[in-house]
Amino acid sequence: MDLKPTKPLSGFIELLPAQQRCFDFCAARMLDVLKTSGFNMLDLPAIERAEVLTDKDNWDEIETQMFLFQKGDTKMGLRYDGTVGLSRYVAGHLNDLTFPFRASQFSKRYRGERAQRGRYREFYQMDMDIMGVNSLSTNYDAEIISVIQRTLNSVSEFIGENAVRVGSRPFWDALFDYLEMNDNQKKDVFVLIDKKDKMGDADFAEGLRDTLNNESKENQIKSVFTNGYFDFLNKSDKLDAAVSELNEFMKTLELFGVKNAEIDLSITRGLAYYTGLVFEFKLLNHPELGTAAGGGRYADLTGKFSKTKIIGVGAAIGFSRIFVALMESGAIDLTQFESPVDVAVLCMGNENLSYAVSVLNALRDAKIPAVAYLDAEKKFKNQIEYADKIKTKFSVIVGESEKENQVVALKNMTTGEQQSLSVADAIKTVLGA
Amino acid sequence: MDLKPTKPLSGFIELLPAQQRCFDFCAARMLDVLKTSGFNMLDLPAIERAEVLTDKDNWDEIETQMFLFQKGDTKMGLRYDGTVGLSRYVAGHLNDLTFPFRASQFSKRYRGERAQRGRYREFYQMDMDIMGVNSLSTNYDAEIISVIQRTLNSVSEFIGENAVRVGSRPFWDALFDYLEMNDNQKKDVFVLIDKKDKMGDADFAEGLRDTLNNESKENQIKSVFTNGYFDFLNKSDKLDAAVSELNEFMKTLELFGVKNAEIDLSITRGLAYYTGLVFEFKLLNHPELGTAAGGGRYADLTGKFSKTKIIGVGAAIGFSRIFVALMESGAIDLTQFESPVDVAVLCMGNENLSYAVSVLNALRDAKIPAVAYLDAEKKFKNQIEYADKIKTKFSVIVGESEKENQVVALKNMTTGEQQSLSVADAIKTVLGA
Repeated sequence: MDLKPTKPLSGFIELLPAQQRCFDFCAARMLDVLKTSGFNMLDLPAIERAEVLTDKDNWDEIETQMFLFQKGDTKMGLRYDGTVGLSRYVAGHLNDLTFPFRASQFSKRYRGERAQRGRYREFYQMDMDIMGVNSLSTNYDAEIISVIQRTLNSVSEFIGENAVRVGSRPFWDALFDYLEMNDNQKKDVFVLIDKKDKMGDADFAEGLRDTLNNESKENQIKSVFTNGYFDFLNKSDKLDAAVSELNEFMKTLELFGVKNAEIDLSITRGLAYYTGLVFEFKLLNHPELGTAAGGGRYADLTGKFSKTKIIGVGAAIGFSRIFVALMESGAIDLTQFESPVDVAVLCMGNENLSYAVSVLNALRDAKIPAVAYLDAEKKFKNQIEYADKIKTKFSVIVGESEKENQVVALKNMTTGEQQSLSVADAIKTVLGA
Repeated sequence: MDLKPTKPLSGFIELLPAQQRCFDFCAARMLDVLKTSGFNMLDLPAIERAEVLTDKDNWDEIETQMFLFQKGDTKMGLRYDGTVGLSRYVAGHLNDLTFPFRASQFSKRYRGERAQRGRYREFYQMDMDIMGVNSLSTNYDAEIISVIQRTLNSVSEFIGENAVRVGSRPFWDALFDYLEMNDNQKKDVFVLIDKKDKMGDADFAEGLRDTLNNESKENQIKSVFTNGYFDFLNKSDKLDAAVSELNEFMKTLELFGVKNAEIDLSITRGLAYYTGLVFEFKLLNHPELGTAAGGGRYADLTGKFSKTKIIGVGAAIGFSRIFVALMESGAIDLTQFESPVDVAVLCMGNENLSYAVSVLNALRDAKIPAVAYLDAEKKFKNQIEYADKIKTKFSVIVGESEKENQVVALKNMTTGEQQSLSVADAIKTVLGA
């Protein structure tokens, strides 16, 4: 019989144990910040009805982008983001939740497209959203940015410092109105702005020319990318309102203690549901990763599910994107994550197993991660080799004389130093190391 | 436009925030035990190649049991358990791992069948496996049982006490040989034993009659369910060896501190890959849940992927099965999980926002879960109503005079008592509560 393949499918992440410990450690640190910040952790189904996932009904086209399947008459698929499930959940539980409702999700998402370098087909994002019924102060937008920064800062020893840039959808709306663009032009120019980074300046200029065919308008739009809102002060009430909202917001960010924040009107966060301020984080030491987190305000989260209007501000941290890339490039040092435990208990002979297990349980009860080499008839050489390979800090050796004297031989695996100690003293030494 | 459905698909679990906090709290407690016990946490892809998931090639039949899809020429699907991915992973990383290798997975699994009451199509299991190359002491089987019991005990305030029953596959093999059954009879009787609980005694007896058509043999098999191995002492060397292994093992369990353990030869753990001792846990206060955890020893984990022989012992805890059922039946009291935070900061007017945020950040820095009501222009009545609804222990009220005096008004939401305190003293009071 042929052996089956052992590699995961392309685009799927599979970490080695030390990498996984680093991944989990960073996730736990960041989730602690979110829980301390009052976010309700949600763990929603990974599978949703197709009609929840998309408004499109071109099954073949959707199928190239998503993982879809049909059960009986029901078409369904794997979620591609956290927002689609959140909308359904919030709309379905309006009376169970207290608003402003704060939700966070740390979960796997799926993209059915062909795998590309750096783009995964299964990946974790860490979302946070604050939602209000009918209204929500923009102070919450500032808080979300502050919480993302605190979350990223909680693992700064691994990922370095971060910075946030803030854009404004209302500014662009006001500018398009001021330039008297029609609806099609607005839509097309917005697509161009969204793709500007990928297409480059020349193609962007050509796109503007194709769409607007008006040099003055084209230049005014281009000027935003060099001068920001500078050329658009006192041009229209709507423009002034957008600029003033943005400037006020930057002050609120300061008040929340947010560092490295600046206005960047080129940030628009795509064509999707954002309607207010938008923002993107990058990691200052790792520009190659692009956007580390992003989000913004939306005016209508649940419109497809409910007549109640839910306004919110939300963001997602590209968790797999950041941590898998930095571990693979070696930018994150995995030394501290190499061993699953601090102590290996080595048992010299089955007749000492009972004592060895009591030592093992005492270590674990003291919250010291520990394993025992339980094939007690194996030679000391094999057993200490195991401890060496799993890179424990200490070995605890238990033989006949240790059992008789109710002590253990505690060996420091780094220095090689070995001491005969009571179990209680061995625990103290390990905890103090 | 019609509104889209807000209910999740049938068979999918969706918890309210307090339930989710309970679920997460219990998972974290149990995972702590596993980490302290030296298990390497693995987070493997949820999607595997169809050929990894199954040896069958009857696509239509498989599709009724699993979630499958095809991308290009590649057929793939969602995992239904943790073992299939673990086998592939271990075989693919033989040189990266140290054996005995200890792995744990806490992840979602999927069953494509039609949803039934109490059977989910997406659910969590918590697996643990210890694997050796070519050999592995049965002391590890005892340790796995001990670790499961410690894991379940870590949440005993929610699920009560547990008990474990141990069976032996070698005993049945020896008995079938002793009864001189042919291979087809062995297989068919094993299916009957596996289904005995569901089919009832009468159908079981009828099944035995159909298969064996030999009253003596039928009665001897039935006697195992009433007298255990009692009628089979000194009948064959193989039977004696199986009984003696089982009795030795029960002593090792005691040595590991396992409580409520007994031999029950009716435990066989189905037809799958188990080849040695097998075991099942139940919750003493919740017999209605059936098996809470189960596992056993397998002689060949990775045979389909590698020529290296991996022997192991593994088990899975039915995490969703236990906790979702007990929360839904009200058996778990959710009171302590009702609030996302301990403190709500109420800010009286935007002019005090800066001070309110500094208080909020001080609370969070002290690891006190806290939120602020940031729509600072809202009336006190609205704000305290929010704190009431999210059931915080304390409110911290910040107004003009608090800002001037650099204090806060700390209100105990249970007693209604209110004190004016420095921020540091308010933090102390909350931490001491």
